[in-house]
Amino acid sequence: MTDSQPHALIIGAGAIGSFYGAILKRAGCTVSAVVRSEYEAIKANGFQFESPLGDISWSPDHLYKDGDTPDVVPDYVILATKVLPGSDRAALVKPWVGEGTRIVLIQNGLDIERELADAYPDNPIISCLAFVAVSRQGPGRIKHNAYGRLVMGRFPKGADAHCEALRDLFVAGGIDIKLADDVVRERWLKCVWNTPFNPLSVLANGADTLTMLDAPGGEKLVRELMDEVMATAAADGYPLPPQLPDSNIEGTRKMPAYKNSMALDYLNGRPIELDAILGNVVAIAQKHDVAVPRLETMLAALRMRA
Amino acid sequence: MTDSQPHALIIGAGAIGSFYGAILKRAGCTVSAVVRSEYEAIKANGFQFESPLGDISWSPDHLYKDGDTPDVVPDYVILATKVLPGSDRAALVKPWVGEGTRIVLIQNGLDIERELADAYPDNPIISCLAFVAVSRQGPGRIKHNAYGRLVMGRFPKGADAHCEALRDLFVAGGIDIKLADDVVRERWLKCVWNTPFNPLSVLANGADTLTMLDAPGGEKLVRELMDEVMATAAADGYPLPPQLPDSNIEGTRKMPAYKNSMALDYLNGRPIELDAILGNVVAIAQKHDVAVPRLETMLAALRMRA
Repeated sequence: MTDSQPHALIIGAGAIGSFYGAILKRAGCTVSAVVRSEYEAIKANGFQFESPLGDISWSPDHLYKDGDTPDVVPDYVILATKVLPGSDRAALVKPWVGEGTRIVLIQNGLDIERELADAYPDNPIISCLAFVAVSRQGPGRIKHNAYGRLVMGRFPKGADAHCEALRDLFVAGGIDIKLADDVVRERWLKCVWNTPFNPLSVLANGADTLTMLDAPGGEKLVRELMDEVMATAAADGYPLPPQLPDSNIEGTRKMPAYKNSMALDYLNGRPIELDAILGNVVAIAQKHDVAVPRLETMLAALRMRA
Repeated sequence: MTDSQPHALIIGAGAIGSFYGAILKRAGCTVSAVVRSEYEAIKANGFQFESPLGDISWSPDHLYKDGDTPDVVPDYVILATKVLPGSDRAALVKPWVGEGTRIVLIQNGLDIERELADAYPDNPIISCLAFVAVSRQGPGRIKHNAYGRLVMGRFPKGADAHCEALRDLFVAGGIDIKLADDVVRERWLKCVWNTPFNPLSVLANGADTLTMLDAPGGEKLVRELMDEVMATAAADGYPLPPQLPDSNIEGTRKMPAYKNSMALDYLNGRPIELDAILGNVVAIAQKHDVAVPRLETMLAALRMRA
């Protein structure tokens, strides 16, 4: 593996990927990156950050273009792309995965690990949920607005020494990590908010959280959508706290109105993670014969958009 | 009332209103119009039509602006505006309604007559459903593409001498009329198509009929939405033929893909008749405790749009 310091390679070094790359760099890791576009800007100037953490700008130790052949096998391959139909994530990481390489997913949604776990049964899959507000300002320029916490666990279960080692690196880099024995349950918990609010914001043409809740019938619909997600989770073996919809809505009402990441993707003409956030939940509901008419309505309507 | 020829006044002389005005003009009626905008163009050139019926262009016998005081009381006040929240239709017709004036609605949707019937309990309300393809080309310029048939009946029930007299005029002007003993039932029948397809096309950002049906889960959702409308109609006292969803979908598949009127309104930045087509159906379902989760999802999502 490595001699002195761990080597992490970020695939999909957008705002999220380059942020966690910055943290690992601060922890003393060798950090490389594979980028699809913006290669020249990043080669010249690295990743330029504005952040409440201070100066976390960094330059990759190795910068690769999509399609390059690796000259080292990293300890950690960190996949931080969006989860979109037609992106073959198993193929994307293939050149960089060697014996013992930990495959780290920092990605949204539910049931997004299986594809990698099936393709790399002998590599540890570390699944992470990011709670971070970052946004791209220009080529290689990222604004870190707030937060940074990761919830992290082995897929499908457990939080072993691989997770602990990576946790220690992120903590050394300055962010908070929660190790989760059951990361799939953590994904379900996050879906109770995301699966209703994110697609709904797109159907509502980019509406913010309070506009959605305050529309006639809005809060009622959000709550019913959350109940459908909860029922699906329970049928899939993940009973969640019954007060979660209430506390989610209450928490959302206490925050200023904001546009969620899927609303922003939609408004900026970028593809949305419809399957990762909604389609996979509906598929699990259908597998278990759970009635999710409202989730299905959102999904079909969004799939009708060309 | 009038001496020799019946006098009809069109309120909301857009594409639909001016088309039926043209028909009554051809039948020998005196036809006046109240317009909100485009007064100058219509004053100068009347309504200029392109139509498969031939030259049906016409100039109103009296042209009024919104807010003008009438100098005659018409036999028929024909209201052909869109049914939008905030438009007080009872107030709109008030200056023009005298004793015995028939109030004729050529408007879309369900449960749109009550407001007029309550305000004018002594005037006959004739409710019409238009099956016509017309579109505005410019100020006072209208293209009549096809069709023209009206389904017509007294609200809430019956097809009496008032309807027959108006029917005879429209037939003399060259279009087909179906007198309906139960015009509310006719509106429910039309809603089985419109209430699913119209709002869905807006959620799908203006998708055409076949794009909606062919999307994954699309036809299934359309059928389920139709079932919800059918169940609501039945609970409201209007059991409809059970094969209607099948025949509606089959019929839609046989036609070329097209964008419905609500999709076109949406794409052209015009307000949509959300309550007339969807909101009123949901309200009736809720009154009868009929579960309409898919219709409610569409309604709440559309109400979230600013």
